[in-house]
Amino acid sequence: MAEQGFDALLFCTEAEVRYFSGFRTLFWHSPTRPWFLVLKRTGKPVAIIPEIGADLMAKTWIGDIRTWSAPRRDDDGIGLLVAALAGCRKIGLPMGEEASLRMPLADFFRLREQVGGAFVDCTGLVRVLRMTKSPAEIAVIRAICTAAGDAFDRAPALFGEGQPLDEVFRAFRIALLEAGAEDVPYLVGGAGQVGYGDVISPPDATPLKKGDVLMLDTGATLKGYFCDFDRNYAIGHARDEARRAYATLWQATEAGLKTARHGATAANVFRAMHEATGGGRSDIGRFGHGLGMQLTEWPSLMANDDTVLEEGMVITLEPSLVIGEGRMMVHEENVLITRDMPELLTRRAPPELPVI
Amino acid sequence: MAEQGFDALLFCTEAEVRYFSGFRTLFWHSPTRPWFLVLKRTGKPVAIIPEIGADLMAKTWIGDIRTWSAPRRDDDGIGLLVAALAGCRKIGLPMGEEASLRMPLADFFRLREQVGGAFVDCTGLVRVLRMTKSPAEIAVIRAICTAAGDAFDRAPALFGEGQPLDEVFRAFRIALLEAGAEDVPYLVGGAGQVGYGDVISPPDATPLKKGDVLMLDTGATLKGYFCDFDRNYAIGHARDEARRAYATLWQATEAGLKTARHGATAANVFRAMHEATGGGRSDIGRFGHGLGMQLTEWPSLMANDDTVLEEGMVITLEPSLVIGEGRMMVHEENVLITRDMPELLTRRAPPELPVI
Repeated sequence: MAEQGFDALLFCTEAEVRYFSGFRTLFWHSPTRPWFLVLKRTGKPVAIIPEIGADLMAKTWIGDIRTWSAPRRDDDGIGLLVAALAGCRKIGLPMGEEASLRMPLADFFRLREQVGGAFVDCTGLVRVLRMTKSPAEIAVIRAICTAAGDAFDRAPALFGEGQPLDEVFRAFRIALLEAGAEDVPYLVGGAGQVGYGDVISPPDATPLKKGDVLMLDTGATLKGYFCDFDRNYAIGHARDEARRAYATLWQATEAGLKTARHGATAANVFRAMHEATGGGRSDIGRFGHGLGMQLTEWPSLMANDDTVLEEGMVITLEPSLVIGEGRMMVHEENVLITRDMPELLTRRAPPELPVI
Repeated sequence: MAEQGFDALLFCTEAEVRYFSGFRTLFWHSPTRPWFLVLKRTGKPVAIIPEIGADLMAKTWIGDIRTWSAPRRDDDGIGLLVAALAGCRKIGLPMGEEASLRMPLADFFRLREQVGGAFVDCTGLVRVLRMTKSPAEIAVIRAICTAAGDAFDRAPALFGEGQPLDEVFRAFRIALLEAGAEDVPYLVGGAGQVGYGDVISPPDATPLKKGDVLMLDTGATLKGYFCDFDRNYAIGHARDEARRAYATLWQATEAGLKTARHGATAANVFRAMHEATGGGRSDIGRFGHGLGMQLTEWPSLMANDDTVLEEGMVITLEPSLVIGEGRMMVHEENVLITRDMPELLTRRAPPELPVI
């Protein structure tokens, strides 16, 4: 902050408020009330939050907690923010890559008008901190990767021909919880002959058919940290075309594992994986990303992201391939960047498409 | 739009994009890519979305789908937006109560600079549409309320003395899924002698003790629609103070049920419930809210929300009471507003604190 001349940083998004305070709640699902954390260059951080959160915030390391009875239509925390930011001339707010503004834009404009200082993007400051994980963060991500791996290991007993896809999802959510996940905020997938149409749909009730490739991709959580990986299964029988696509993507992930290490760039790793797919087409836009408090975080494994990977970063390796019209396949593993080969946090998928 | 002079509306948030297009995916958990929907006063709506979503968007009623290979650092959809908004002089964007901006603020400023027109708050337009539910929406909310009620009915078998609170949460998540919930995005609760400290915490491993009051509050979903209600249970034994607080809140909910109908205001219903608590103190800021695609929606049952309730609105009645230092209790039911008494979508909680 001193180097870049910031007098204060203002955060209003779940991940940033949690990262800097330890404040964790699912209550962010309610869009009604804004939550703010002000970090000053000197002095103690200030939480400016609805009264409903005072008790929980008091359990964090934040000592200066200012509350109001929210929601309050005439002033939903803005007056308190203006007071807390008094005298600050350059105020950082994440406005760049991957940022959102979780407060009404009209309130932000009011705040900007009433505060003397200028709001300037501080995404870079937050990004560099959050990208590298502490040993405690890594331990939690490793644990949720292991739990999700245990749930995937039950696939032959959980999934089979004739089962509607929504029941596949329900059974897998339960298996993840039974394996130790605290929550399953993210579960997507698809099934189809050879490959699947897309990788972001909710399930419908279409039954699994013999020869389908079933893919499940989960962001299960523990203590608010995500895993994010998928597995593919052939139902009853694997077609040659599916086996070949699977083998190509498995090799692409191998190429990623050989490349992803301290000092390589995100673009390097992307290129190695992309070459290993034979330069195949993908609609996903990248071949992996950071992982932690959010399902996806910086950096992006793509051609124009030159972020240098560093020891302690946790990323996904996620090559994908369009197989034919409306058919694709995707693989994904989670790894910890080290000075040597990355540490696999997920148990490596088998080299051949498993048939269940 | 014509009355208020809007040439176009721009949406970038999950609920609004889903409401106007039917596009539903958990992929919004990834903060990486922005998603846009442009509704023009004349002409067809335009979805401007990352390529990864093209297949799923094509299944909605939206015909004009423009994609880019996202994430793209130099232009993450802004160029396409500028083109789609060309010629629009007054562009609506939700900027008011309960709104967020789910795109980088720096990109919004770039967009505003490049688009000829002015961005003006359109929260009121969206609010009036979303607050009143269609019969199809009501049917889904009724179904998820019933499923969650079925899960709560299993409480005596699921929860008991000595069980760590995090295991209580895990067991209840599984019970909700088994009862037919598609997902459990929101589950909070607490346990303590007489009452609980707050109502937004994640669980720790503290075991339930005899005499504890356990409260679980769930936003489970079906087809992307929420229920949002809680239930209280005394573990092994109910203390008199807990029984009294419970009875007061049950009566406060009754007062809400007698008041909440077509033509009453949100403030009317709040006042009736607040009087029934004997004017008791609460830290929650309101006594209920709208419910639907989001866990909480407009209006707020509070003293200064004069929204007139209308037939077809779905709201929660949620009186709460501070019992003592760091101890509170909360009740919650979900109802459909009609011209007469509201229809209970949740099976009414028992009038006396149940002991399990």
